[in-house]
Parts: sequence; structure tokens; C-alpha cells
Amino acid sequence: MTTFAIGVDLGGTNLRIAAVDGDGKLLEKITLGTKVVRGRAMVVNDMCNAIQALVGRFGGSAGQLSGIGIGVPGIIEMQTGMLRESPNLPGWSNYPVREEIESRLGTRVVLENDANAAALGEKWLGAAAEVDDMCMMTLGTGVGGGLVLGGRIWHGMTGMAGELGHINVDPGGPPCGCGSNGCLEQYASATAIKRMAMEAIAGGGAPGLARARDEDPEFSSKVVYQMAVQGDQPAREIFAKVGWALGITIAGLVNIFNLPMYVIGGGVSSAWEAFAPAILERVRSNSFVYRATAPPGGAVAILEKKAAAIVRRHTIITRALLGSDAGLFGAARLPMMDARPD
Amino acid sequence: MTTFAIGVDLGGTNLRIAAVDGDGKLLEKITLGTKVVRGRAMVVNDMCNAIQALVGRFGGSAGQLSGIGIGVPGIIEMQTGMLRESPNLPGWSNYPVREEIESRLGTRVVLENDANAAALGEKWLGAAAEVDDMCMMTLGTGVGGGLVLGGRIWHGMTGMAGELGHINVDPGGPPCGCGSNGCLEQYASATAIKRMAMEAIAGGGAPGLARARDEDPEFSSKVVYQMAVQGDQPAREIFAKVGWALGITIAGLVNIFNLPMYVIGGGVSSAWEAFAPAILERVRSNSFVYRATAPPGGAVAILEKKAAAIVRRHTIITRALLGSDAGLFGAARLPMMDARPD
Repeated sequence: MTTFAIGVDLGGTNLRIAAVDGDGKLLEKITLGTKVVRGRAMVVNDMCNAIQALVGRFGGSAGQLSGIGIGVPGIIEMQTGMLRESPNLPGWSNYPVREEIESRLGTRVVLENDANAAALGEKWLGAAAEVDDMCMMTLGTGVGGGLVLGGRIWHGMTGMAGELGHINVDPGGPPCGCGSNGCLEQYASATAIKRMAMEAIAGGGAPGLARARDEDPEFSSKVVYQMAVQGDQPAREIFAKVGWALGITIAGLVNIFNLPMYVIGGGVSSAWEAFAPAILERVRSNSFVYRATAPPGGAVAILEKKAAAIVRRHTIITRALLGSDAGLFGAARLPMMDARPD
Repeated sequence: MTTFAIGVDLGGTNLRIAAVDGDGKLLEKITLGTKVVRGRAMVVNDMCNAIQALVGRFGGSAGQLSGIGIGVPGIIEMQTGMLRESPNLPGWSNYPVREEIESRLGTRVVLENDANAAALGEKWLGAAAEVDDMCMMTLGTGVGGGLVLGGRIWHGMTGMAGELGHINVDPGGPPCGCGSNGCLEQYASATAIKRMAMEAIAGGGAPGLARARDEDPEFSSKVVYQMAVQGDQPAREIFAKVGWALGITIAGLVNIFNLPMYVIGGGVSSAWEAFAPAILERVRSNSFVYRATAPPGGAVAILEKKAAAIVRRHTIITRALLGSDAGLFGAARLPMMDARPD
């Protein structure tokens, strides 16, 4: 009999539920269009129904359910399984998510911050499968982060560790919603890329971007990326700035942690080619620890299993491999690891 | 029969050797004036003689020697016990320190970076005795750092972790010897304080500091501190800058780690009162994780044993307690912990 777990990715727009076996094989994935704005009760209901359907299909005589892992955007009180704060899930603050789902389904539930779950997913099955220590930055609407040390998520004292999007890049930089200025999130998120594009347009030096904005009512960071790929100079400079800020941040993380791997994921990471060279340039100039441990050739390594020997002895900066499924796989991994803190 | 260890603090100017028992009691401390400029052979000789004298006095029928720990300034290859790079110990690079001392004394030797040893000392017997996870910044000629996670020094992949003095504060800041710009070390070291004072004097707006420099051929960061204590405004602003830079750095570390304790030691930390308020102000404005976990009253906690309950549930930023002995005690602790990495 195989063992499997349920992973849930409870996002601000999508609700995804998957059954994953102990080897990381995806048994089935359900994507629900449930809008979180329709209220907590409906989301919990739909989630529980989907979980029960999957457990019915893969459990019983066929497989042993090890538990349910749920990745949620926001700050989780690890001891109680409460959502402390979650800007993207209005109405969920101070709601005992874990207790509620556990009592409805009679199964152990592990709650985790979504960026932490994504880091664990990449460590289990993705870019960082060959290492035990890694950190991941998730570039989306905001910038999330997750640390895996010794194979486990580093939660810190109150579960708030890994807020890598709010590391200082430039104290004279744009104000951030967190109360600081010039945080990584103000340079490397989709929101920041759009803001920088609007600033470039307003400055009058970006006619291509101005045209794109006028033509496209959905003007976004993706359009800026397409423009960069087509060689538009102002768009390219925006991605150079993204890489500059990520480079300063990663240089600091390398000096602090001396980890074998730094992974960049999230939607913005699909623009990898546009910002990766600037990361490498900056990390090389800013971190002597990186220079002492850079992989042969100095390039971003293309990760293959056979590269394990290089991977474990050098500092690798690379993009994530699991795309938007990283958090879903990571969530499923949680109950398998017996990850609930005491 | 008691167990004891020998701790060695091999600094750029002083060589200190201590016998410490398993409870952290200092049995005896030897301070040698051996100048490292007189050559490696003489330093090793004097060190071994002092160690043998202490082992003769406290070993044998009286006590069991658990080993020798040596804190050295520089980058250590943990696997081999070689000093890779050490600007303050010319002639020691690529010298097999561990092997050499082990073969001369027939006792196990553990080598450690001096800032890491200081962090371990403060964790064992000093400001961080009540916690398992902490980080320490040592403000001296440069700025060193050490991380203790789960009670053990975090070395990273190649032993280069904890270079907290080279975290970015301001990418537009002064160039740093490490190749980057605006590193913490450029604001919070004794060297930086003196540089900022000279800049203030050159700018013409610091007549008090100018007078002090003219009168004192040994004009240093200590003099700047004395001026700040006496109310000299330019001197006070320099220490406000020290606190500002430490605050930006610690805010980032809080967001990354969510640790219960951040300790500031080294010679410059004796000016604590002059820069601590600026640290707190900056950490509070820059880190939402700090704001969510600040100790009651928001002040820097005065650490007492009875404050353990507060200590383990809040973010404490405090000065070191062991002074210049932190590294010596930490070095002695190393062989007790069986700390040699595999």
C-alpha cells in the first residue's frame, strides 16, 4: 500500500488541491475557481469537498493518507495553526484554519506560509533537490521568501522568518508597504516592474512602453518583459534594475549563510533571461564569499542530476523548476515530514 | 575529576590562552604580548608552551582535558583546519594550523573563526545564554559576525557564513575592501567611525573633533565617543549613523531569521549608549517582524536570568556581556561540543 498526502495551495485567486505520493508523483490535481472574495465559508467548503474526493479515490484499501498540508499567503502562528495576518485573504485573520479543517476531516493538517511551502517543494523535487540547505525568493505580486536549513523550513521564533522581500536594498529607495524604504519587493515584484515602467513612461523616455500601455488595458510586468525581449532599451533597463536589486540581496544572503543554492521562482522568474545576468554581475562584485565559491566558469549552472558534485561545493543561483506547482508539492510534503512544530 | 578545555584567542595584537572548566568557570588566563609580526613560528611556539603549562597545572590527576579550541581572525577551511585567508595574520595563509598544533601537543584541536567563537561564547555564558538561536556582530577594526542556530555555529557550505559586516546598507555608500560599497563595516567599525570623524573635520563643520584630533596623536573612535558623551553634536551624529547602519542591517536579519536575540559586541560596543537608540528607531521602522515581536515597552531589554520568558518570545537586541573574553570562552567551548565538522 502506498502512502500519499494532500497538498493545498490556497492563493488569493486560485484554490488548488493535489494528491501526491511519497516519491513526489502527482496522483491528481484539482484546480477550483473558487474566488476567495466569495467568503471563507465557501472556500473551506469547496476545499474540504475536493480533499474528500481525492482521499476517497486514493485512500482506503489503495493508499494510506499521511495528512494534509496547506500553503497560505500570510503570517501563520505555528503553535496554534492560526492565520495571524493575510492581506490576500480578507476575513481569514485570526481564523483557526488548522483546527477547523482537522475537525471537519478528522485528519492531521499542517499549515504553512505559501513561500515557505514553495521553497520546500523546490528542495524536495525541484532545483534544490541535491542540497539540504537553500533559500528561495518567490517573485509575484510581492516578493516572498523561504529558507530550508538542514532539510527543514526555518521558521524562526514566531514563524515569521524568511521575509526576504523586505530585505533592504537601498535606504533611499521607494517606500514599501511594510513601513521601510527600498525593500527588495520594491524592485523585483511584478508590481514594482509595472511601477518602474509607469515611471519611465511618465519621465518621457520610454515611447515603446508608452505605446504598449496605451494599446493594452491589461498593461503589466509581462508586457514589460515582452518589450525587453524585443530589445526595447527602457524595458531592458527595468529588468537590469530587477537583477541589480536581487543581486544586492543575494550577495548579502551569500555573506550571511554561505548556502549551496539560491532559487528564484514565482511568475516574474519567467523573465529570468532578462534579469539573471545583472544578478550575477552584482553578486560577483558585492560578495567575496560568492567569488570564493562561484561555480566553474562563473555562469549560472544548468542543473542536472549529474551536476550534484558541483552543486554541493559551489554557490548556485538558479531559477525554480516546478513553476506554480512548487507550493502545492511543498504543501503535500509537510505532513510527510511530520513538520508540525511542538 | 573535572573536565576542562583550553581556549585560545589568536588576535592580530594579543595572544591569550585560558583553561576553562565545563561550567564555564575560568581556571586561569595567560595573556602573551607575542606580536604576530614576529612570525608564525614564534607565535605557535609561545602558544604551545602556554597550553602545556595550563594542561600541566589543571590536567593529570586533577582534570580531564577535552581539547583545545582556537579562535583566529580569518577564513577557515573547516574540513582541513587550514587558514585560507587572514589579513591580520600575515604569513598564516594556507598554513595547516590544526594539524600542526595537534601533532605538537597530541591533543584534539578545533579551529574557528574568531567572530564565530565570540558568538558561541556569548551564547554559552553571556547575553544569549537563555536562547538557542542568536546572531552576534563584533564591532572592532572591522565588523565580524557569527550565527548560532540550534545551539551550534552555522558554518555554511565552506565555513564562510556569518560575514555580517559585509551586508549591504547603502549601495551608494563608501567603497569597502571586500569589493562592494556601503557594507555595514563602512559605518559601524572603529575604522569607519574614525573615517567619518575625519570627513566631518574636513568638511569644516566639526571644530570640536578637529581640536581633539590636533591635540591627540592617537585620535581614534574612542575619542569620537568621548566627544559624543560630552555632547559634541558632530560626534553624536557619527554614532547616530553607526546606529542607523546597524539598525538597517539588524532589521534585515530579523526579517530573514526571526531570531530571539541579536548581540552586539567588540570594542566599539562600549559606545552602546551613543548608538543603541538609533538602532532601535531604525529596526522598528524597517522591520514589521520586529514590530510584531518587540519586547514589552519596546526598549532594549536589560537581560537578567529572570527575564528568560520575555527573552524567548521577543526579539531582543542587546550588547554583549563578556567583553573581550567572549572569543576566549567560545574557543574553549568548541572541543566540549565536539564541534569538529565531518
